Amino acid sequence: MAGNPERRSALVDAGVEVLAREGARGLTFRAVDAEAGVPVGTASNYFADRDALLRQIDTRLHIRLAPDPDKFAELLTRPKDRSLVVGFMHDLMARATRDRTGYLALLEMRLEATRRPELRASFTRSVRADLEKGIRFHREAGLPGGDETVTVLYLAMLGLLLEHLTLPEALEGVLPGVGVPQGLVERIVKTVVPET
Amino acid sequence: MAGNPERRSALVDAGVEVLAREGARGLTFRAVDAEAGVPVGTASNYFADRDALLRQIDTRLHIRLAPDPDKFAELLTRPKDRSLVVGFMHDLMARATRDRTGYLALLEMRLEATRRPELRASFTRSVRADLEKGIRFHREAGLPGGDETVTVLYLAMLGLLLEHLTLPEALEGVLPGVGVPQGLVERIVKTVVPET
Repeated sequence: MAGNPERRSALVDAGVEVLAREGARGLTFRAVDAEAGVPVGTASNYFADRDALLRQIDTRLHIRLAPDPDKFAELLTRPKDRSLVVGFMHDLMARATRDRTGYLALLEMRLEATRRPELRASFTRSVRADLEKGIRFHREAGLPGGDETVTVLYLAMLGLLLEHLTLPEALEGVLPGVGVPQGLVERIVKTVVPET
Repeated sequence: MAGNPERRSALVDAGVEVLAREGARGLTFRAVDAEAGVPVGTASNYFADRDALLRQIDTRLHIRLAPDPDKFAELLTRPKDRSLVVGFMHDLMARATRDRTGYLALLEMRLEATRRPELRASFTRSVRADLEKGIRFHREAGLPGGDETVTVLYLAMLGLLLEHLTLPEALEGVLPGVGVPQGLVERIVKTVVPET
């Protein structure tokens, strides 16, 4: 496999663009080469097969969608109450909205995982690890609510992310005076997370 | 447009299969003809264009995934408390799991809607109408919780459906002793819906 790390990284980002724009079936080495503006045949020098490319896209999206360390550290100086949970969830929503292409590519990966057992196994592990990390973080930070709270919060945010990033107008005005998505994030946290 | 209603319906169901199995990009008239086992060119006699086929798939999935009227009527004879909400949510989850292909096709439609403004407009209307119907139903049946409760419940169930139908093992054992998905459905309702 070819080893230029910048070119590899550019190819993986091109793969993210193709996934989001064309769907999983459009993700071919040829389409990635075209998106990255490199000669035909380049991607096949960097990835053993399409599954290897998909795994590297998953890893890359974790980095692209990860919290900003400074922002995260700042949030952690605040009192460990429900409004801090709102802060973390606003930050999650803001990251996914800013990198909507990256988040849509993740959704395409989920659907592709239903068709490819190997991708399903690796993607299941990474989604599961994220959820467990969230549960541990919530516990260790001393935020209100137990593991069930975090799991239900995770699912409601997953639903909101899916709805807001695919059909942004569907939730607009459903609850009068509640903005989408930020106002809805607050209502989710107030409904799911106990006050203390 | 050709008018044999049974053949039209068989073509739309074939479109659902193709969408779930191949993804939105694989949904061509030719693939639908092949899936339905009819001569090449048949689908193009039944649908003006691909958007028309996608709209009819949306309508068809509403029927395929709708509650069974007898089951629904039986649930409505029970006391209007939180455990009835659990009953309705179990029924929703059971329907989506039974017709997993249909639900996966709906998820493909969401992603396709991000690429096609016309589909996005019609799909937004149908998703929105479903949510408003759910809110109205909850209110008129006198179930516990207000419009916010129903909206948050809707989002958490949407997240659970996405997770369970694409990566069924990801939630397995996250909460010890809580089965996936039915045990999780109960925890969601207990967390989101007030007792009375």
